[in-house]
Amino acid sequence: MYSIEEITKIIIESFDTENPSEFNRAFMKEPKVLYQPIEYAMSQGGKRIRPLLVLMAADMFGGDLNKALYPAHSIEILHNFTLLHDDIMDVSAIRRGMPTIYKKFGTNAAILSGDTMCAISYRYLLDPGFAKLSTSEERTDLLATLSLAFVEVCEGQALDMEFETRDDVSIEEYIEMIRLKTSALIASSLKMGAIIAGAKKEDIEYIYKFGEYIGLAFQFQDDILDCWSNFEEFGKLTGKDIEENKKTFLYLKALELGNEDEKKELKELYSGIEIDKKEKEERVMSIYERLEIRSIAFELMKDYNQKAIESLEKISIPDNNKANLISFAESLMKRNN
Amino acid sequence: MYSIEEITKIIIESFDTENPSEFNRAFMKEPKVLYQPIEYAMSQGGKRIRPLLVLMAADMFGGDLNKALYPAHSIEILHNFTLLHDDIMDVSAIRRGMPTIYKKFGTNAAILSGDTMCAISYRYLLDPGFAKLSTSEERTDLLATLSLAFVEVCEGQALDMEFETRDDVSIEEYIEMIRLKTSALIASSLKMGAIIAGAKKEDIEYIYKFGEYIGLAFQFQDDILDCWSNFEEFGKLTGKDIEENKKTFLYLKALELGNEDEKKELKELYSGIEIDKKEKEERVMSIYERLEIRSIAFELMKDYNQKAIESLEKISIPDNNKANLISFAESLMKRNN
Repeated sequence: MYSIEEITKIIIESFDTENPSEFNRAFMKEPKVLYQPIEYAMSQGGKRIRPLLVLMAADMFGGDLNKALYPAHSIEILHNFTLLHDDIMDVSAIRRGMPTIYKKFGTNAAILSGDTMCAISYRYLLDPGFAKLSTSEERTDLLATLSLAFVEVCEGQALDMEFETRDDVSIEEYIEMIRLKTSALIASSLKMGAIIAGAKKEDIEYIYKFGEYIGLAFQFQDDILDCWSNFEEFGKLTGKDIEENKKTFLYLKALELGNEDEKKELKELYSGIEIDKKEKEERVMSIYERLEIRSIAFELMKDYNQKAIESLEKISIPDNNKANLISFAESLMKRNN
Repeated sequence: MYSIEEITKIIIESFDTENPSEFNRAFMKEPKVLYQPIEYAMSQGGKRIRPLLVLMAADMFGGDLNKALYPAHSIEILHNFTLLHDDIMDVSAIRRGMPTIYKKFGTNAAILSGDTMCAISYRYLLDPGFAKLSTSEERTDLLATLSLAFVEVCEGQALDMEFETRDDVSIEEYIEMIRLKTSALIASSLKMGAIIAGAKKEDIEYIYKFGEYIGLAFQFQDDILDCWSNFEEFGKLTGKDIEENKKTFLYLKALELGNEDEKKELKELYSGIEIDKKEKEERVMSIYERLEIRSIAFELMKDYNQKAIESLEKISIPDNNKANLISFAESLMKRNN
């Protein structure tokens, strides 16, 4: 077993040195108009959470980390492709402190480079180097897992877009959207790590479930941080979700629990009316405080985390081997950005 | 062996009845914002040339046509996905006489539905129903073929975009662009048909080569038809390529063969100057006529067709079995739309 730090180091190095090598030649090829945006997108780092999960899962089941690097790269480039197209759809100009691809290279290049990243994602799993390390059953399993996650991420993004124009979104629907948009790829990362390590079928299902719950907990934490990040330390609110009328769990729960006046006020504030940003934020937050939305969300997040841990416990390997994923789950609960 | 008419009927029926069934459920699923554009795109018909090639190749090598339907659907939806994104990039409002997806459903829905079609394309090859009919080696072969073609189509589209802003495009580069943008998917359709029929490795290479040459001949015919379609019968020019300053083979060849005055005139006419559409067309066409560009292009098209036939002849199966592909190649030479 490797430590999280060791695994992180392997991942960072493999992205820096363009390893696994054979297919990364793709990045170096002409035409530049296609491959420069891809190189730019992939060189911006990010947390590499999905590759980390692939390798941690592989390691946990005694798998070969060099073999795990192929699905790790596959899923990371697929994830970055979804971000790239999402940024066009959401008209987001900045990501990770840098101009987004469509801002820097234009919308057409962003669409086409994104499409190519999706093809490259599959090609990692069809790489001749990977073929030497894996069986064709493993590869078709991985490809099916990737493809399902890919469809689900698209469905999640579509629901997210649909919710913008609906005022009857239920909390159940919101959670299903998050499951598709965020959890599916996280759970699939873990599943792919388990597959290449030859884990048992039921263990693969448990680790997938672990990932689904972790993904939900992650998103709840995101929603909370967007409203209360560093509030204790700096008294500073971020409030981007409120500014953009995002129908988060917090908003939907407040609509459910509020009295008629509060519901009316919330809907009005989210209706696109002309209002000072600061005032809007304060009024929404004041409703959230009154209804104790933060602690409700926090409790639910803890619930998901607990369910994740329970799913992990069912896996039929020594507890020691689960230490990395447990501390990963714990770190999620404590993160502040 | 089936006749082309019989194969065409099987294909049309399979698209009408959403057969092979298992994965087409995807089209019926929520969210509508995602699946309606896909249904719209796939219901518009088109010539279904790529599915036809998959089935003809499979049939030629004695393969099962029901099995061949999976790669046929896979490649057709991938092809339609590329058209969908191309229409956004090219700002094309009409395709097959109907509003394009982004015109009808908006750019965001078009991007996202296109992405989903690409995932669905892979899922046809990972379909449980297909798994029963094929080996996992066959499936990974097909998936690798699809993925390479996918990258090549993107590269071809990128080169096409790049050429718009360059005035030093060589004929060699143009042909490479066509090979990537058009031939790769046509050749891969044939290859996929051959794979599922268990054809020999070298025969698969020959049929791929046949497809590459046919694709080139097809594009040359397109370039010619755009300038001289129905000219004998109606004296009517289409001239869309000229209007849009498309650097086709005709244009590039004229630049190569023309004298200094002709080169200067052509470049000026293609520089985006304000000029009456009709006058521009007549002046470009007059240069083409003087330099006999049409017959040069026609000869080259015949050459490619001939090379295609030669590649087909090398395949180690009875000549009778090649009849469908030979008449397909011949029909390409005679088409007028």
